[in-house]
Amino acid sequence: MGEFELIRRYFAAAACAAAADGVALGIGDDCALLAPAAGQQLAVSTDTLVAGVHFPALCDPFLLGQRALAVSASDLAAMGATPLAFTLALTLPEADPAWLEAFALGLNRMAAACGLALVGGDTTRGPLSMTLTVFGQVPAGQALTRSGARPGDLLCVGGAVGEAGGALELVLGRLAAEPEVAEPLLARYWAPQPQLALGQALRGRATAALDVSDGLLADCGHIARASGVALVIEAERLPASAPLERLLGAERALQAKLGAGDDYVIAFTLPPVELPALQAHWPQLAAVGRVETGSGVRVLDAGGHDITPRQGGYLHFTE
Amino acid sequence: MGEFELIRRYFAAAACAAAADGVALGIGDDCALLAPAAGQQLAVSTDTLVAGVHFPALCDPFLLGQRALAVSASDLAAMGATPLAFTLALTLPEADPAWLEAFALGLNRMAAACGLALVGGDTTRGPLSMTLTVFGQVPAGQALTRSGARPGDLLCVGGAVGEAGGALELVLGRLAAEPEVAEPLLARYWAPQPQLALGQALRGRATAALDVSDGLLADCGHIARASGVALVIEAERLPASAPLERLLGAERALQAKLGAGDDYVIAFTLPPVELPALQAHWPQLAAVGRVETGSGVRVLDAGGHDITPRQGGYLHFTE
Repeated sequence: MGEFELIRRYFAAAACAAAADGVALGIGDDCALLAPAAGQQLAVSTDTLVAGVHFPALCDPFLLGQRALAVSASDLAAMGATPLAFTLALTLPEADPAWLEAFALGLNRMAAACGLALVGGDTTRGPLSMTLTVFGQVPAGQALTRSGARPGDLLCVGGAVGEAGGALELVLGRLAAEPEVAEPLLARYWAPQPQLALGQALRGRATAALDVSDGLLADCGHIARASGVALVIEAERLPASAPLERLLGAERALQAKLGAGDDYVIAFTLPPVELPALQAHWPQLAAVGRVETGSGVRVLDAGGHDITPRQGGYLHFTE
Repeated sequence: MGEFELIRRYFAAAACAAAADGVALGIGDDCALLAPAAGQQLAVSTDTLVAGVHFPALCDPFLLGQRALAVSASDLAAMGATPLAFTLALTLPEADPAWLEAFALGLNRMAAACGLALVGGDTTRGPLSMTLTVFGQVPAGQALTRSGARPGDLLCVGGAVGEAGGALELVLGRLAAEPEVAEPLLARYWAPQPQLALGQALRGRATAALDVSDGLLADCGHIARASGVALVIEAERLPASAPLERLLGAERALQAKLGAGDDYVIAFTLPPVELPALQAHWPQLAAVGRVETGSGVRVLDAGGHDITPRQGGYLHFTE
């Protein structure tokens, strides 16, 4: 079976073979052709997931397909972009129809949920890994970057953080938990919901934004550096998570909230006046700190004491 | 070292951190922002290269970097697109500075030659492989697709085919040859020259085009299917290659010309009236056959006898 045929057969539900909104030419030629609307820029992000590094090699292919695309779509959300299309480069040890069918089902379902059309890809033989490149459009000059945070802004998160990190302990078999603890955590890990609508609502409001993938502390460091400001996280304002606290206990739950990645909620900075209108639509949205002059990220407890962990976040090649 | 830092350090020469022609935002945020000029569509292509499948694991990293980008840029050439930018997703077993430096040098050199700016990427730990996604712009409606070939058109190639296939025998150590035979062939394999200027010149002239990557016979099959026509290749018109014929002998050289991929010249169909002006600028360009009504691809010898090989081209998952 040729590679296009393979992709077409399993990914037909997401595949875009001809013209669609913003797509002038889909799968099957040397290139796809994207046609963003007039006045729009094209947001592009690439992510690779490797078996044994980013997910267990024997994990459920449906969940993997779902998660792989959600992780990439989250980068579009963090830029305030409207999803358009994606490409999938899939490397497989063998063409196993059952695996491909389940993987494609998960991927196609997330593609439909996000409004992303598959416009191209590559299928190769090798150790299991995948690279997804996602495309969205955003009005010129309105993308949410990391560099606009200003002293006086609030630091906000789009929802609970740390839960996917707790789930990873379950996924890797390092901890076990009863279903009412495990299920909500595993759902956050396997089916992250890219905050696409929130990202678009933040255009013209947020001064800086990113999606929490390396861990809140490390990701706040990215905003602080890019914006030339200091960020302060007030630990007691971080959204509570009953299952996470039951799984890990209060102290390790706080470590997960600050250091664990994979939640894919948006962290952003915002003038205080903008908060009430956003919270009316997104009640889970929380102000967890503030922007100050200076540099770096500090974590304060309820008494205002500095409790910043020395190491936070997950960085490739530094483990 | 963080992943962005890693990429920045080694790929700085190609990296685009801020605004450039057609690039509104480069490396370092959740997404890059591309801004094609008004009236232009964005051509996108993704290719994965896996160690042990697409290149020997221990090959020279400089040559690998050069070749990896050339292979992807060739897809832009085949669409008639003007290069803009690319992303690199690099998976490495370890962060070896000497390897990265040499790989980046080859990649950066090809990026400069093609006019491609690095706008994003991902660096992960795992078995050596890489996925490159390239972006180009092309005036709306003028991209060269595979579907417009018409009976009466000539079938042309942008240069010699089969040489990279001959080189592969040397790369894999299955054959050896004296330097005057080996060197020109190895250059075709390691440093393919994407025919970007030719591709742009074919806009408004060629009726169908692609780059020869699976082998001429298989790639002509793609045009025949997409256009609903038959393609006839006249074997004696295929460009001669003295080093290829010395390495393989006449019969196996013909098989390589028809079946071997990796040359990355453009194959295209063209109304006969357009040929002389193109050949004046690209003397190595050759008319090697014609488009007829019907379907499929046939190869004829000088006497008009059908000598079509039963199997041609390289398809993943069918070896």
